[in-house]
Amino acid sequence: MSNENCAVILAGGQGKRMKSDLPKPMFEVLGEPMLEWVIKACEGADMSRLCVVTGFNHEVIEEYLGGRYETVFQPERMGTGHAVIMAREFLRRYMGGNVLILNGDAPFIDSETIKKSLELHERENNAVTVITAEVDDPKGYGRIIRGEDGIRGIVEENDASVEQKKICEINSGAYWFNIEKLIDALGQLKPANSQREYYLTDTIFILISMGFRADAYISENSDSVLGANDRKGLLMLNNCARYAIINKLLDEGVEFVCTDGVSFGRDVKIGRGTRILQGCIIGGNTEIGENCVIGPNCVIENCTVGDNVTLNSVQAHDSRVNSGAHIGPFVQLRPGCVIGEGVKIGDFVEVKNSNIGDNTSISHLTYIGDSDVGSGVNIGCGVATCNYDGEKKFRTQIGDNAFIGCNTNLVAPVKIGNAAYTGAGTTVTKDVPDGALVLGRPDEKIVEGFGTKRLASRIEKAKKSGK
Amino acid sequence: MSNENCAVILAGGQGKRMKSDLPKPMFEVLGEPMLEWVIKACEGADMSRLCVVTGFNHEVIEEYLGGRYETVFQPERMGTGHAVIMAREFLRRYMGGNVLILNGDAPFIDSETIKKSLELHERENNAVTVITAEVDDPKGYGRIIRGEDGIRGIVEENDASVEQKKICEINSGAYWFNIEKLIDALGQLKPANSQREYYLTDTIFILISMGFRADAYISENSDSVLGANDRKGLLMLNNCARYAIINKLLDEGVEFVCTDGVSFGRDVKIGRGTRILQGCIIGGNTEIGENCVIGPNCVIENCTVGDNVTLNSVQAHDSRVNSGAHIGPFVQLRPGCVIGEGVKIGDFVEVKNSNIGDNTSISHLTYIGDSDVGSGVNIGCGVATCNYDGEKKFRTQIGDNAFIGCNTNLVAPVKIGNAAYTGAGTTVTKDVPDGALVLGRPDEKIVEGFGTKRLASRIEKAKKSGK
Amino acid sequence: MSNENCAVILAGGQGKRMKSDLPKPMFEVLGEPMLEWVIKACEGADMSRLCVVTGFNHEVIEEYLGGRYETVFQPERMGTGHAVIMAREFLRRYMGGNVLILNGDAPFIDSETIKKSLELHERENNAVTVITAEVDDPKGYGRIIRGEDGIRGIVEENDASVEQKKICEINSGAYWFNIEKLIDALGQLKPANSQREYYLTDTIFILISMGFRADAYISENSDSVLGANDRKGLLMLNNCARYAIINKLLDEGVEFVCTDGVSFGRDVKIGRGTRILQGCIIGGNTEIGENCVIGPNCVIENCTVGDNVTLNSVQAHDSRVNSGAHIGPFVQLRPGCVIGEGVKIGDFVEVKNSNIGDNTSISHLTYIGDSDVGSGVNIGCGVATCNYDGEKKFRTQIGDNAFIGCNTNLVAPVKIGNAAYTGAGTTVTKDVPDGALVLGRPDEKIVEGFGTKRLASRIEKAKKSGK
Repeated sequence: MSNENCAVILAGGQGKRMKSDLPKPMFEVLGEPMLEWVIKACEGADMSRLCVVTGFNHEVIEEYLGGRYETVFQPERMGTGHAVIMAREFLRRYMGGNVLILNGDAPFIDSETIKKSLELHERENNAVTVITAEVDDPKGYGRIIRGEDGIRGIVEENDASVEQKKICEINSGAYWFNIEKLIDALGQLKPANSQREYYLTDTIFILISMGFRADAYISENSDSVLGANDRKGLLMLNNCARYAIINKLLDEGVEFVCTDGVSFGRDVKIGRGTRILQGCIIGGNTEIGENCVIGPNCVIENCTVGDNVTLNSVQAHDSRVNSGAHIGPFVQLRPGCVIGEGVKIGDFVEVKNSNIGDNTSISHLTYIGDSDVGSGVNIGCGVATCNYDGEKKFRTQIGDNAFIGCNTNLVAPVKIGNAAYTGAGTTVTKDVPDGALVLGRPDEKIVEGFGTKRLASRIEKAKKSGK
Repeated sequence: MSNENCAVILAGGQGKRMKSDLPKPMFEVLGEPMLEWVIKACEGADMSRLCVVTGFNHEVIEEYLGGRYETVFQPERMGTGHAVIMAREFLRRYMGGNVLILNGDAPFIDSETIKKSLELHERENNAVTVITAEVDDPKGYGRIIRGEDGIRGIVEENDASVEQKKICEINSGAYWFNIEKLIDALGQLKPANSQREYYLTDTIFILISMGFRADAYISENSDSVLGANDRKGLLMLNNCARYAIINKLLDEGVEFVCTDGVSFGRDVKIGRGTRILQGCIIGGNTEIGENCVIGPNCVIENCTVGDNVTLNSVQAHDSRVNSGAHIGPFVQLRPGCVIGEGVKIGDFVEVKNSNIGDNTSISHLTYIGDSDVGSGVNIGCGVATCNYDGEKKFRTQIGDNAFIGCNTNLVAPVKIGNAAYTGAGTTVTKDVPDGALVLGRPDEKIVEGFGTKRLASRIEKAKKSGK
Repeated sequence: MSNENCAVILAGGQGKRMKSDLPKPMFEVLGEPMLEWVIKACEGADMSRLCVVTGFNHEVIEEYLGGRYETVFQPERMGTGHAVIMAREFLRRYMGGNVLILNGDAPFIDSETIKKSLELHERENNAVTVITAEVDDPKGYGRIIRGEDGIRGIVEENDASVEQKKICEINSGAYWFNIEKLIDALGQLKPANSQREYYLTDTIFILISMGFRADAYISENSDSVLGANDRKGLLMLNNCARYAIINKLLDEGVEFVCTDGVSFGRDVKIGRGTRILQGCIIGGNTEIGENCVIGPNCVIENCTVGDNVTLNSVQAHDSRVNSGAHIGPFVQLRPGCVIGEGVKIGDFVEVKNSNIGDNTSISHLTYIGDSDVGSGVNIGCGVATCNYDGEKKFRTQIGDNAFIGCNTNLVAPVKIGNAAYTGAGTTVTKDVPDGALVLGRPDEKIVEGFGTKRLASRIEKAKKSGK
């Protein structure tokens, strides 16, 4: 791909029907702004010279991009042609090359389409190449009028004859232009209506009338034309993207019994033979191994999961779970966990910013935070690492093969030695040597008859209240 | 609307195929009996004179209504005409006015249709005005035969000619009648078959043959004709109602990424920019603010939720959550909670009948019941308010900026002062002054070698069992 | 049904597009291998003489069957005809009878179809009876060519004329053969192509050309033809089976408000009036009574549940829940529980291998393992049965009407007497007599000013950091 090529992404739209202060391209599909989908499609086609034309609440986009790519601000909303004129400075830098014009709110443009349409554009030496799609229901879209050599123009729905309305090749709104010729044509652009709007499609007619060649590239991905004008449309884009990913994963050998409530981020990778149950939301930079059972109702973000892992009703963020671990139901792994091989974590357990050694067992109702736990450890029920004293956080260390009794408090910083035991109900504030037992427990006192009296009083009360 | 108008709701049906002892109008759509939907449609059209005709297991409806509206009992199931005859006493009271006849098991009749059909009925001075709908597939419904002036009659599916079967305007089963003329016509009604059933539709023919005017009002809401004869039909009504609400919320600017498992009660209000994730069941008198993230898998009933709140896998009833609170995953708010602004509630926490001050943090595995917790408080892991002594419940008070150590028991009634601390593992039975620390913890004793012996014994055992 | 009849199930397929080492018939529909569905259909038709022909990774099937039925191994994949030839020894044993040939990866064949097709086969004295189905879209299937008497043959999609392609009666791939004639025909079978594949359908032509009678039985269950070649197809089979069960349950009077995420195993029984909410996965040998509310998000396997039970976000395995119990949200019942009538189990509770007496209450954050709990017991928050000492597990006994205080540890083996009390925070290591109170709690010490200093230091810090 020529170094002279660049892209301009039109991202000025408001999306009034979204009822939001967010610019339209910032609405998310599968957790990523539509603008990001468009940028990634460019990056996937090795394009790095991008200019984003902003408009409505432009600060939001500028802040989101954080300088990754340059932006120009279109202060007035005067049409797509006017938006591209705003990027004239940017375009002049790549004179001699070609520019791809994309809509920031048509997220499903793909790198393959970008590459192949450029090939056609360059091979045919076109002034403009329209990226098109063939659809079953073309209603509402601009129809492509093909001639003997290339295209003769684009006819909008309102201007189309009965015959033209039957054409199923439609304009996606994405184009390759020869930059020099585009700038020339932009100079001749006139407002299309009393709202002083300049339409980019008019430059195609100008170029054709100047004797230049215009052609169309039919994308194999007809979803590339899809956009959203309201929340319903956005939901439709999300469902479209969801099913595309589910179908890709099915092809790769992932098993689904029921896909209800299941959604994935685009970068998620899942090994073959893994079964995903209903209600799982898996996103970010997550990679799951083979032959796992995930779900129901897991929320997983930015995690690496080994093979043969069970995650049942687990919410996990920014953590690593090694092979053979069984976790759940009702568990949270907060960021910074490394869960060893064969670890068992039972119900109502939170682990945060901790390392859990291989084959350790944390069965129920426990919080392990800021801890380094060895392998072969058994942690009882109701154990709390007291990692916070109201001012600072401290770490807890538990040695290999240790046994932590039920309702033990481990007041950090504290170290439990290898093979050490803590008695049930002990609050441990000092280090425990290897192989020792720590006990902090008063003797039990029996008060005879206390319960008997209470029961009698309960019965009497019940009688009085007539139960 | 004339004071002389009233409504009779036919609610005698059994619904045999439901396989239940519940009268058919008591089956629920989105958590409310179909009868209630019909009553609310009347109330929304400012109609307050309602008479419900009961039949099958009439006590259930009488108990449900609790005297809100009057009922008459139709002891034998002898048709819709007979059911209206049962309400003759009621009708006579409003002689001179009009009566709306509705089916108690067609829940989607709406106030707008009621109002507009009455306007037509009164404007045209009709004896009867049939509320109709235009549908794509009229099969099974009575077809409306229109004449030059008003309608000429209603033809049932079985009696319809091939030509009549093509008519897509159908009878919804709801009618406005002039009461005087209706009573007259009811007097002339004859049984339609050997089962001695009296059909209300026959009164329309009688009125027309008497020279009175009959017309039809086409409802814009074609769902108004829908009813359910079995559980499948009831599920269909529920789905119909679910999607209607989801679409309304989308229009109002609520965001959905995946609507699987999402359902709402009819009175729920949600602010724009709030995102509802999969699996949320939100009902009752719930109002949620703007820019919240709700879900996945929240169950929310009768709650008020502020702006910018996160609720993740939370079940909440009859409570208030103020703006900026972050709650979940795996939390239950039982009735009577007020959660302050910016509060953080982490995993495996139950709060019941308590006030939690602003910016307080309850991170994990804690039960706060019958308590008043100040602002800026930090509650550790495993804390229990012991609010019940086996006989009575008592309140716990925690002052501002207090710090409650892990696995603390707060034996109510008890008061923890402002900025007071409780040591981990302490059972607090007496009030703690402001700024003090309370500690109830025996010294730890170390038993050297205990764990070492245990480990050796475990290893030996494992050897013996050949592992 | 004649004792001479038997069945051969073809289970040699690989299913390459599944991307798995599992033989295709071992892929699961609603949690059971497709092969098991086919076997159960045979068993439901009282057929007990089955021979499974294995091929790809045959050990998996052999291990799964565990000798329940005999298998023969087809070492090379040489077509369906060749597969049946492998079972020749088996067939010879039942000479004089008939054999049903079934595909191990077409799970929806049903016992009724098997019985009725055999009736036709025997009544007409056919050499072969093809089990067929009438479908809307026959594309891709073999079409049945009927003659004046019986069928004249089966034409595959590729060989079909335009006229034949319109035939909507298709071959399911299941057949009844007279064993003697089949063995004769198999002897005459020639490879159909250069891959030396022998097609079973060719035997039908051979039998017809030998003058024997062939006919077709049209199954009322057109799903009987469905199979899966890839994960998408398998998902489709699962959805097909899911909706079939949901529809059956609706007919039986079970209520669904939203079926998203709901799935059932085939043997699950549910009483009328029970409401199943979204996200429930109910499988194994589970039976649920009448008028229960189950869900959302329950996972239930091999459980017996009484009437009027509420299970909300409960995961339960191999347990019994008696009538009137209310459990959830966020509860796990691990195998071996018997939950008494009217028991209340609140949030974040695990019960394992325990008996819970009638009307007992376990409200929050508790683990009851290996225990026998009486009736009318109240168990506080944070209670742990310490059933494991690192080597062995022990039982805990709690008498009727006992009251277990919050954060009590019950160190098993231990027995709490009837109407006995345990004080909050007590670790109980010795038996407590009936009607006594046990207390193990040090006196509280107050350290004045500790919290005040801490707060001052926090405020100073915050000032320094400029907050």
